[in-house]
Amino acid sequence: MTSAIEPHKARRLYLLLRDQITSGRLPPGARLPGEPALAAEHGLARVTVRRALDLLAGEGLVRRRAGSGTFVQGPADPRPVVGDLPNLLSGLIAMGRATGVRLLSFDYVAAPAGIAEALLLEPGERVQRSVRVRLIDGQPFSYLTTHVPERVGLSYSEADLAATPLLELMERSGVTADRATQAIGATLAGPEVAQALDLEVGSALIDLTRVVFDPSGRGVEHLHALYRPDRYAFQMDLLRTGDAGERRWTPAAAKPETRSRPAHRRPAP
Amino acid sequence: MTSAIEPHKARRLYLLLRDQITSGRLPPGARLPGEPALAAEHGLARVTVRRALDLLAGEGLVRRRAGSGTFVQGPADPRPVVGDLPNLLSGLIAMGRATGVRLLSFDYVAAPAGIAEALLLEPGERVQRSVRVRLIDGQPFSYLTTHVPERVGLSYSEADLAATPLLELMERSGVTADRATQAIGATLAGPEVAQALDLEVGSALIDLTRVVFDPSGRGVEHLHALYRPDRYAFQMDLLRTGDAGERRWTPAAAKPETRSRPAHRRPAP
Repeated sequence: MTSAIEPHKARRLYLLLRDQITSGRLPPGARLPGEPALAAEHGLARVTVRRALDLLAGEGLVRRRAGSGTFVQGPADPRPVVGDLPNLLSGLIAMGRATGVRLLSFDYVAAPAGIAEALLLEPGERVQRSVRVRLIDGQPFSYLTTHVPERVGLSYSEADLAATPLLELMERSGVTADRATQAIGATLAGPEVAQALDLEVGSALIDLTRVVFDPSGRGVEHLHALYRPDRYAFQMDLLRTGDAGERRWTPAAAKPETRSRPAHRRPAP
Repeated sequence: MTSAIEPHKARRLYLLLRDQITSGRLPPGARLPGEPALAAEHGLARVTVRRALDLLAGEGLVRRRAGSGTFVQGPADPRPVVGDLPNLLSGLIAMGRATGVRLLSFDYVAAPAGIAEALLLEPGERVQRSVRVRLIDGQPFSYLTTHVPERVGLSYSEADLAATPLLELMERSGVTADRATQAIGATLAGPEVAQALDLEVGSALIDLTRVVFDPSGRGVEHLHALYRPDRYAFQMDLLRTGDAGERRWTPAAAKPETRSRPAHRRPAP
């Protein structure tokens, strides 16, 4: 057992605890386990645990009270977005939240193989690729990489995309979005995304891929979106339907809402 | 710039690249950036990059070909689950996939504040708390922490829960699940969950919370579920409905499916 600080292990513990605090699993006011308990659970020296707690305290996420322990502070941003699954942007606008967008890149490229396959492109068909960061109340919360077939992308300009939601631009120019498939997973923030979303490398992100088709079945948009889970969660209401033995959950018409405290979104198990 | 290996930085790069491979963003056959490019992008010494690639190669995730670079190998498990949003278990059974469960703990406790609030419990009402790991084809893919009001939990035993889905037990004993709210986010695996799901600490996980209510509005189940994103993704089909100006996405009746290659689930942007 060494008593030297191990900075990268401290950083790892800091990221884990930060995640528990921002997700609400460690709610405001909760007392963290003591240094000896954290050291034992994570197999770390106490000085390393202390360094992790220093990092949390430096960000205002915890407060240490002499003789009584370390306590979670209330979150800096008390208004995380809790939106319904598919209609993020219209929901935010309906809520009257201030949204913004930063266009990070915009160009036309050969379609990567996976994109060409998902959008059912003709061989050699090129795509418009854009990267945008979306903001809520001035804070970045999503990182969007979009691929659109060139024939669709040419109907609007880079300046249009920096100001108007993509689906609205497409529908204005006569492209009809008819149906989409969507998959939600989780991933880690790499250096580029971490910087754009104002996060540490290695933070957890929600990972969404949506492919949109027109009525003839041609792909018109491939969206890959990464969301900060402390600023956004996918929320939906479900109804239990069907006869006994065949009971299943059916999505109810969900509407986006804000929550006053993230701690209540995912209570500590 | 040092030329000594920094093992924790190597581990961080290994986790990021592993995540890109298992998520399909780096599909089988893709060529990784060269060591100098990775070193520059991540601010690491080349020996540290090499250590990260050694770790990936040791797991069979990449193969190095002398003189031509490092290439992504096909995944070890070619059948990730891609389920619809709410009906995970019935979907898996309908697919004929072999599912299993490990009951890790089962007890009755005072309700944590967040749980009591979410389930709308009476003051002092106790809860049954269980922790289960669910397996698909013998591999762990989800870690479920469930809180159920004591009055509901007493209608089945620990042995029942180790063998039968909870909602089925509740419905058999006369409790009617009527509606639920559900939120999906992302989080990092801590030591306990990482061990149960056979993962590295700090891996990305899908984080789901579902609260189920009976027809009278009383809470009957609080579920907190963590999913390995390389073994499970939430998939849904959407339809674009409504008149011009009021167009929005509506969930379509989704059915679970398997995919032959995870690489096509979330193509590289």
